Amino acid sequence: MKHFAAALIALSLAVPAHADDIAEAADRALMDDDVAWDFVEGITTEVGPRQAGTEAEARGRVWALDWLRAQGFAGVAEEPYPMQTWVRGEELAEIVAPFAQPMRITALGNSAATPAEGLTAEVVGFMSYADLAAAPAGSLAGKIAFISHDMRTTQDGSGYAFAGPARWTGPALAASKGAAATVIRSIGTESHRTPHTGGTTFPAGTAAIPAGALSNPDADNLERMLARTGGRPVTMKLVLTPRSLGETQSGNVVAEVTGTDPSLPPVLLACHLDSWDLGTGAVDDASGCAIIAAAAKAARTAGRLRRTIRLLFAGAEETGVWGGNAYAEAHKDEPIAVALESDFGADRVWRFDSNFRESNPELHGKLVKAVARFGVAGSTVNATGGADIGIARNQRTAIIDLQQDGTRYFDLHHTPDDTLDKIDPIQLRQNVAVWTQVVGILASEPGAIKPAE
Amino acid sequence: MKHFAAALIALSLAVPAHADDIAEAADRALMDDDVAWDFVEGITTEVGPRQAGTEAEARGRVWALDWLRAQGFAGVAEEPYPMQTWVRGEELAEIVAPFAQPMRITALGNSAATPAEGLTAEVVGFMSYADLAAAPAGSLAGKIAFISHDMRTTQDGSGYAFAGPARWTGPALAASKGAAATVIRSIGTESHRTPHTGGTTFPAGTAAIPAGALSNPDADNLERMLARTGGRPVTMKLVLTPRSLGETQSGNVVAEVTGTDPSLPPVLLACHLDSWDLGTGAVDDASGCAIIAAAAKAARTAGRLRRTIRLLFAGAEETGVWGGNAYAEAHKDEPIAVALESDFGADRVWRFDSNFRESNPELHGKLVKAVARFGVAGSTVNATGGADIGIARNQRTAIIDLQQDGTRYFDLHHTPDDTLDKIDPIQLRQNVAVWTQVVGILASEPGAIKPAE
Repeated sequence: MKHFAAALIALSLAVPAHADDIAEAADRALMDDDVAWDFVEGITTEVGPRQAGTEAEARGRVWALDWLRAQGFAGVAEEPYPMQTWVRGEELAEIVAPFAQPMRITALGNSAATPAEGLTAEVVGFMSYADLAAAPAGSLAGKIAFISHDMRTTQDGSGYAFAGPARWTGPALAASKGAAATVIRSIGTESHRTPHTGGTTFPAGTAAIPAGALSNPDADNLERMLARTGGRPVTMKLVLTPRSLGETQSGNVVAEVTGTDPSLPPVLLACHLDSWDLGTGAVDDASGCAIIAAAAKAARTAGRLRRTIRLLFAGAEETGVWGGNAYAEAHKDEPIAVALESDFGADRVWRFDSNFRESNPELHGKLVKAVARFGVAGSTVNATGGADIGIARNQRTAIIDLQQDGTRYFDLHHTPDDTLDKIDPIQLRQNVAVWTQVVGILASEPGAIKPAE
Repeated sequence: MKHFAAALIALSLAVPAHADDIAEAADRALMDDDVAWDFVEGITTEVGPRQAGTEAEARGRVWALDWLRAQGFAGVAEEPYPMQTWVRGEELAEIVAPFAQPMRITALGNSAATPAEGLTAEVVGFMSYADLAAAPAGSLAGKIAFISHDMRTTQDGSGYAFAGPARWTGPALAASKGAAATVIRSIGTESHRTPHTGGTTFPAGTAAIPAGALSNPDADNLERMLARTGGRPVTMKLVLTPRSLGETQSGNVVAEVTGTDPSLPPVLLACHLDSWDLGTGAVDDASGCAIIAAAAKAARTAGRLRRTIRLLFAGAEETGVWGGNAYAEAHKDEPIAVALESDFGADRVWRFDSNFRESNPELHGKLVKAVARFGVAGSTVNATGGADIGIARNQRTAIIDLQQDGTRYFDLHHTPDDTLDKIDPIQLRQNVAVWTQVVGILASEPGAIKPAE
């Protein structure tokens, strides 16, 4: 059976891919793809965390370049760019009074440092971002603001849009009211003592303050303490000593499956290769790179493809989309036909969104029909694409979002628990199958792939 | 309804408890006991971790003494004893070569310290305790032994007996073969980056070496590394700086519900008040103390009880049963009728074991019948009791084990994740109901409670 399939594949490489060949390649991927797993297992084991701008990210690039060449991709290259790099230091939190006990905390990206010996101050609790916004100017002077804005599990990840502001801009908001530091409830949906990191931003004119995330059980505990003190202040000691390394070098990794018609704009598939430092970046986002690479390789087994498939393993997404922005700038004069990014874990694709449902209903319909057998439904949601395909938004090209089931994603996102064991190999293969089907059709498409007008 | 129940309870205090009163008290506990939750929430929030021999354990005792008095118990007292105390220091592990990345580790109780700057050595992997036992004498000289003995989930906790030796005596075994240090796979059943601590022992004549537990995902990763190096050594750097504080003071906390017949030996209910330092000791073992205290109080609401119910909140169980041993010694001349300990979390009781099924079938049968409505089955397993009721084993008294569902227990055991949110209030109440039923019957028992011959 295996030998027979291999013979078929070898034969197919010489002839143009037909729709049936593409469907068969996708079906094969569902049954036995091991390219995606090979990538995720390899990079998480042999490199581990790959924080943007660090030597670990650089080792990740070297590993990915070697792997892409070994998998037979063309045009494998590194495209360097400079970036500003922030790294974690020591991180400790403890309640000093009245209920002395340690807490689990991690610094948010761009957090300022406390003094080395720590900062001790009264905690003022806010159950939501809105409550913090309502606090009077100056009312937090010298205090630690605690934002306990909790996140709910959703399949489509919409809980992140609701809870995310507490991390993204909560510390800056607290700083504008005089806070000495901010601690937030982790933007995450599980209940483990593994706090979720992630970037925060301080706008021009607002000096950065120390900012960290408590694990969810610690945030629960702090809420209870505030409710039980009978008016006595709750005092916390915070040690966070991150620092800026200034400008360092990072880079994107690119590769391609070369199409037969160089006059046609390529299909761009993206993911990001960097990860936060706490976990090994298995679901965020080694699995995305694994899926797009495995799908591009599988689509090629269907036969020769008209359009070039470009792979972008972007660098430094987590700390500000440095790689995606550098790619958009470097390639701004090269038209792209359509772009897709995989950056939401490794659980199954359940929904197909495009931004050309109305402008190109025939292609949209063909794609929806082609992925239905994998349990994927078409939607009327307008695709906007992942963080690293800004080039497609700039060019106003077609975009497809292959929405993954996000039910478990924010249990793991930006935590130490983002490790290989969290990946379900069966669902990973379903991703590869769906992507193979979609990418195969797109790369065979002779006409323009019109985006929304 | 509440008022009516309260009036009934007040009335009942003056009269002897009948079987129906006890059953009603147990039924009430199932519906609305909040005494147990009050204890667990209070001590985990207001004290937190309570490591044996430390000032945190002492704060836990003060808190528990106050709480027991507020709940109306008689004879509330502290019974001090001296102990040897070990405390955690810094703990870091990283793979240096060939696949450089950090790992999550925690020191095992009684671990020796590495030099402050760490210890760097080659890792030699053993998939089981038996593999380590088979290693030739001297073969581990200067190496770090890695024991990756994995634990399976079981309802009755029997996986612990299978996997536990890797922690209990694995480091000493490796030391006897020359190992410079030992790292084990966590004795735990989940897959989080939260390693499980717990005591290890070095027998006389074996010098202690540094010993730590990797989280399960890290142990998985290290296994993969060893399989992928192609013969190159895997080198680990280990920083573990625990230290001994020498002799410190600890103590047991005791309390009672006084019985009407002082000539009858009491019913002893035990738990332990100390916890490991990583979590807040919610399931191990604040919930045990909560259950026995809530049940003793609830049984009292059934009416006056013949026998005294003694509560033992033992200190310093985790680091060597110091409290249980001190209690056994201090009270060795005071006969006990029957002893029970709750120290396996807060999930439901599912099995009733005694050591008097054959010697006293009438009482055994009455108890089994009385708890059946709570979903508890009688068994033919001989009860041996928890760690802190050595006094009962020494006296060869009757023992009952109210076996709890251990399916989730080793996900949390000795980790940072042992926190209040892991307790299911409904199952906690089921425990209180079952214990109320059993304790009520035992404390009303006029005849001798014969143990196994």
